[in-house]
Amino acid sequence: MGAKDSDIYSKHSSSQFNEELEKLRTDFLTMGGIVERQVTDSLTSLLNQDIELAETARELDRDTNNYERSIDKDCALIIALRQPAAVDLRLIISINRAVVDLERIGDEATRVAKQAIDLANSDGSTKGLHEVRHIGELVSEMLKDVLTAFARRDMELAYKVVKRDLSVDREYQSAMRSLITFMMEDSRAISSVLNIIWVLRSLERIGDHACNLAEQLIYQVSGTDVRHMDTGEIKEVVRD
Amino acid sequence: MGAKDSDIYSKHSSSQFNEELEKLRTDFLTMGGIVERQVTDSLTSLLNQDIELAETARELDRDTNNYERSIDKDCALIIALRQPAAVDLRLIISINRAVVDLERIGDEATRVAKQAIDLANSDGSTKGLHEVRHIGELVSEMLKDVLTAFARRDMELAYKVVKRDLSVDREYQSAMRSLITFMMEDSRAISSVLNIIWVLRSLERIGDHACNLAEQLIYQVSGTDVRHMDTGEIKEVVRD
Repeated sequence: MGAKDSDIYSKHSSSQFNEELEKLRTDFLTMGGIVERQVTDSLTSLLNQDIELAETARELDRDTNNYERSIDKDCALIIALRQPAAVDLRLIISINRAVVDLERIGDEATRVAKQAIDLANSDGSTKGLHEVRHIGELVSEMLKDVLTAFARRDMELAYKVVKRDLSVDREYQSAMRSLITFMMEDSRAISSVLNIIWVLRSLERIGDHACNLAEQLIYQVSGTDVRHMDTGEIKEVVRD
Repeated sequence: MGAKDSDIYSKHSSSQFNEELEKLRTDFLTMGGIVERQVTDSLTSLLNQDIELAETARELDRDTNNYERSIDKDCALIIALRQPAAVDLRLIISINRAVVDLERIGDEATRVAKQAIDLANSDGSTKGLHEVRHIGELVSEMLKDVLTAFARRDMELAYKVVKRDLSVDREYQSAMRSLITFMMEDSRAISSVLNIIWVLRSLERIGDHACNLAEQLIYQVSGTDVRHMDTGEIKEVVRD
């Protein structure tokens, strides 16, 4: 219908560009799915003293790392070849940063799986497993929700994840206090309780990273860098 | 001398571009200097039970966060306006990623400063301070060297930082074992020894982040993503 060659070319090129961006988003969400499985499998392996599942969870780390490398490479290529601006550039930058947090969640899950193996191999007490289950469920839920927020570009859901991190921190502090008291009362249990303490610390870090992911999604959609803002300020950005 | 207007413009624009890249490098190194001070001040405050210095170290975190935000904004602006390619793009990408590690080193230093205050306010035992001093010196040296590597684009020095992380991990494991033994022998000391354990864990993380920084510098100079490679493979990239 009278379109010039250059229009057709730019249309073609722009639809290819959109496909590249879509692939980036899909790869990111796939990587997120693997990391989610690392977290739930490592937790289950700990709670059920299942060494085999712990090994499987550890092996997933290779997949996570491969996705990290490949997504980073794609980000650099798209920037170099497509010279994206505005919202497209923000998508790439936020995914580039979010991948770092995903990879570190994977690292923490690997640490949990390692503790699961140590604990199953010792005559470990089961003290603290109740708290692990509870906080584990909280941070798994945060991770699931923040990935949904990425899939739907849903800032409101991301904001809820940020808010929930506060209650994870409270639960973590309270669990730590009771475990320390327990160690003082029964010094033979110190070593196995420390295993549980490392797990709780990893879970708390996973919560922090989920929170970072939520902040990246808010940046992607709104253009505002909300890191280091308090929840009240973030709320204003999200609802503006 | 016969130069066309467009040449003059592109020359002008390219020298401005170089200035922008240089500013990015300078800001990154300045931020690195602040983080270095956060680490040494928080360690000194812990070793000397100096609450005032610990508070100063904590306050530096605001500066670090401001630099993070400003550098990230500059990176996005340069990408959008200058459409950099090849080595320039790698500089921007590597700095964009390295800033995350710098900021997290700052966070760990803040945690150390917090432990310093807790310890000074308790009737804390001084068990483990010797190990803190030793491992603290190792990771401070790693951080100093990796920033020098960034300043000089020195891959060989970055590689040395990566290698040194292995000995930090060994020292950390051995310090942890002796602190756990100590807790078992004297359960009244559990709480204060745990303070020291958190500090050691933060130091170990600082070593990990310094290692990540070194990998980013190697990527910046060589173009090869060496994350998740073992030291033998990294050596080949660096000396190629």
